[in-house]
Amino acid sequence: MRKIFQQELADLGDDIYAMSLKVAEAVRVAGEALREADIEKAERVIDADNRIDEYEDSIEAMCLSLLARQQPVATDLRLVVSAMRLSATLERMGDLARHVAYSARTRYPEHVCGGPMFELLSDMTHYATEVAEDLTRLLDTHDLEIAEGIRRKDDNLDNALKRSFELLNVEQVELKRHEVVNSVLLTRFLERLGDHCVSGANRLEYLVTGDLDSSVTERLGGESFVD
Amino acid sequence: MRKIFQQELADLGDDIYAMSLKVAEAVRVAGEALREADIEKAERVIDADNRIDEYEDSIEAMCLSLLARQQPVATDLRLVVSAMRLSATLERMGDLARHVAYSARTRYPEHVCGGPMFELLSDMTHYATEVAEDLTRLLDTHDLEIAEGIRRKDDNLDNALKRSFELLNVEQVELKRHEVVNSVLLTRFLERLGDHCVSGANRLEYLVTGDLDSSVTERLGGESFVD
Repeated sequence: MRKIFQQELADLGDDIYAMSLKVAEAVRVAGEALREADIEKAERVIDADNRIDEYEDSIEAMCLSLLARQQPVATDLRLVVSAMRLSATLERMGDLARHVAYSARTRYPEHVCGGPMFELLSDMTHYATEVAEDLTRLLDTHDLEIAEGIRRKDDNLDNALKRSFELLNVEQVELKRHEVVNSVLLTRFLERLGDHCVSGANRLEYLVTGDLDSSVTERLGGESFVD
Repeated sequence: MRKIFQQELADLGDDIYAMSLKVAEAVRVAGEALREADIEKAERVIDADNRIDEYEDSIEAMCLSLLARQQPVATDLRLVVSAMRLSATLERMGDLARHVAYSARTRYPEHVCGGPMFELLSDMTHYATEVAEDLTRLLDTHDLEIAEGIRRKDDNLDNALKRSFELLNVEQVELKRHEVVNSVLLTRFLERLGDHCVSGANRLEYLVTGDLDSSVTERLGGESFVD
């Protein structure tokens, strides 16, 4: 009985990791679709989001089943609850990647915008891809230095969002109406992707250390949405 | 032992309901702050968000404790897991209300924008307040007709978001740069508030009926973010 349970917990961890790989791929390809105005890549991300949603459903079902049948305690309970939280976080990241892909697809064959805002958005796609891939490595290795790295690199996205406000509102860089709309949305999607990675990293850290304070900081927050 | 457990479950339900009242108040007052360009109301919402976050922390801690000590099964397990999901949903709603309040505060003493976009945003604040208050009644009564009503009324917010795209991109209504930026953000915040209410309603319905299909639709989704 216990052996089966341990196998189920291992399977749960594997599924979370597999889901994170799909999400990191979505973030990477969505970024490419945006930078390259590539409609095929955009479509690929949009179509693949169903698979990510299915992961969340099956992980939640697995967790409910484990809670009901095995009644885990202590570390095992933390693992099951963390898996539920992580799958919800990963699913939101997949959604955000899909929204980035929608933008790229809608403007095709044009780029979503031009000028310094496009450069900034391109940078943000690279930062987002980096932290999404870091999250997969963290889920694989449980190396908490990676968690620290994710929190640090998320600053790049927060700073880029602030820079976008300057470009939009202070410098009032020349942009057509739809470019302003796209920029506001895309900078937010990409910055939120970073926040979710931090949330996932904090949740994993809580799982490893048992420190509840980390889970308090799992909340997406801060002043990053102030306009 | 069982009596204590039943009391703990009842307390959990009470806390979720109390949290929902705080959230509905935040949504209502944030809407008023926006419509009336009222900085005091904006500040009130911003300050009160800490209390909402505290609710989420204490509810999560209570749920973990219940899972570990009481090892609930069947309906009781669904209640505990649903409480964790609902508190996360309510916390996000509180955040969105806070972001609406930030916008109102930043533009004070001016309104966030003018013209037909301001009228649209005002309508959206009313719709959002309505579904947030419906959610509290649903959590109080478990009357599933309210859940159906929330899903229906959420259409108002989805349609308003689509209308905002028309105003911005098609009709290209006259708006200053900061008004465009604010409008894009605020329409999204308010439409997301509706989505979270639907998510909460679906989760409550799953709790009452035990029907897992409803929980699949708990995901925020749809095409509402397409720009």
